[in-house]
Amino acid sequence: MKAVVLLSGGLDSATTLYFAKGKGYRCFCLIFDYGQRQIKELEAAKKIAKRTNCKSQIIKVDLPWKGSSLLDRRFAIPQRKSGIPSTYVPARNIIFLSFALSFAEAIGAEVIFIGANAIDYSGYPDCRPEFYRAMQRVIELGTKAGTEAKAKNKKAIKILTPLLKKSKAEIVKLGLKLGVPYQLTWSCYQGKKNPCRQCDSCRLRAKGFKEAGMVDPLR
Amino acid sequence: MKAVVLLSGGLDSATTLYFAKGKGYRCFCLIFDYGQRQIKELEAAKKIAKRTNCKSQIIKVDLPWKGSSLLDRRFAIPQRKSGIPSTYVPARNIIFLSFALSFAEAIGAEVIFIGANAIDYSGYPDCRPEFYRAMQRVIELGTKAGTEAKAKNKKAIKILTPLLKKSKAEIVKLGLKLGVPYQLTWSCYQGKKNPCRQCDSCRLRAKGFKEAGMVDPLR
Repeated sequence: MKAVVLLSGGLDSATTLYFAKGKGYRCFCLIFDYGQRQIKELEAAKKIAKRTNCKSQIIKVDLPWKGSSLLDRRFAIPQRKSGIPSTYVPARNIIFLSFALSFAEAIGAEVIFIGANAIDYSGYPDCRPEFYRAMQRVIELGTKAGTEAKAKNKKAIKILTPLLKKSKAEIVKLGLKLGVPYQLTWSCYQGKKNPCRQCDSCRLRAKGFKEAGMVDPLR
Repeated sequence: MKAVVLLSGGLDSATTLYFAKGKGYRCFCLIFDYGQRQIKELEAAKKIAKRTNCKSQIIKVDLPWKGSSLLDRRFAIPQRKSGIPSTYVPARNIIFLSFALSFAEAIGAEVIFIGANAIDYSGYPDCRPEFYRAMQRVIELGTKAGTEAKAKNKKAIKILTPLLKKSKAEIVKLGLKLGVPYQLTWSCYQGKKNPCRQCDSCRLRAKGFKEAGMVDPLR
């Protein structure tokens, strides 16, 4: 069984890849170069894909309108959380999933794995369960694979979100059990030599390791 | 009111742009360079956007897996129709709409126009009403604009498909009334000097002009 795995280079997506491999899927990693203000994440994704011996495909996503502090250096990365933060990239996961879907249809993959998490997360709307249910409906109604599956009474390509309802600590524990090389992952929104430990992503990662009673190998 | 208009350079999208302008929208055209095997369509889209004095943005969409006779010269363009044809590009309209959505969120547009048609069409699943309803739900649940609109009891960005249930003849009649410069549009899947008149797209266009009792200025 083939799976397309969205791989960002962060803790969640790396854990998801190891989870998918553990379930016996032949994984094809999809890595997005979408103008992130730092490239460490991208480098991390490539290293992780290589470590797992999975094929990977880098896709350059052209987002000239930016509209997010994650893409535009003129804005500061926020340190605190209230509402949907400025690091939100308009429709990012929708774009990523639509590419994954195209890839899955082209190679005949049965599932798409995405490491979205709706518990210890930054409040992005495209990380919530109801969004994934809506995307699943889009697959069933808007693709050739979905239409043909329905005609044959089979299931359409399925989006799987194994981390969706796990806490960050549960994710860390699962990942360590699966042997995820967390020293290769990169979570910080800033692109400095060491993680800033201030941004939302660093804070959530630290919380996860702390609550799991583990030490982050990146520290 | 701002609108993002998906502009392919074909008859339907050009008519949709003129329709949107006629409704008083300030239109921002989105043109996709997704590796079409011919570039005449792309050139047509640029000319039409220029003619209407609308701003346009060209987006390069990286689809290295191809998986469609529309993108891959190793395959012949089919001349007959049965089921979903090989010109289907995996998840194409889902990808296009996700970029349109990102653009709309970034510039604060209220609507997205797409010239999809489910009457005189090639049988692509991403041209059917139920697909657009599913995408609308994705907007409401998966975007910042959708979430914030809901909190304020306002409407999310809306996908508008004014041609969805029109015949090709009705589209041609509407376009001629609106002054669409059909001589600038390009429908043929082949990239030769003149339209091939054999492919599905040429046949549907010819049918439209014939049933409308009009002469195609491209002939």
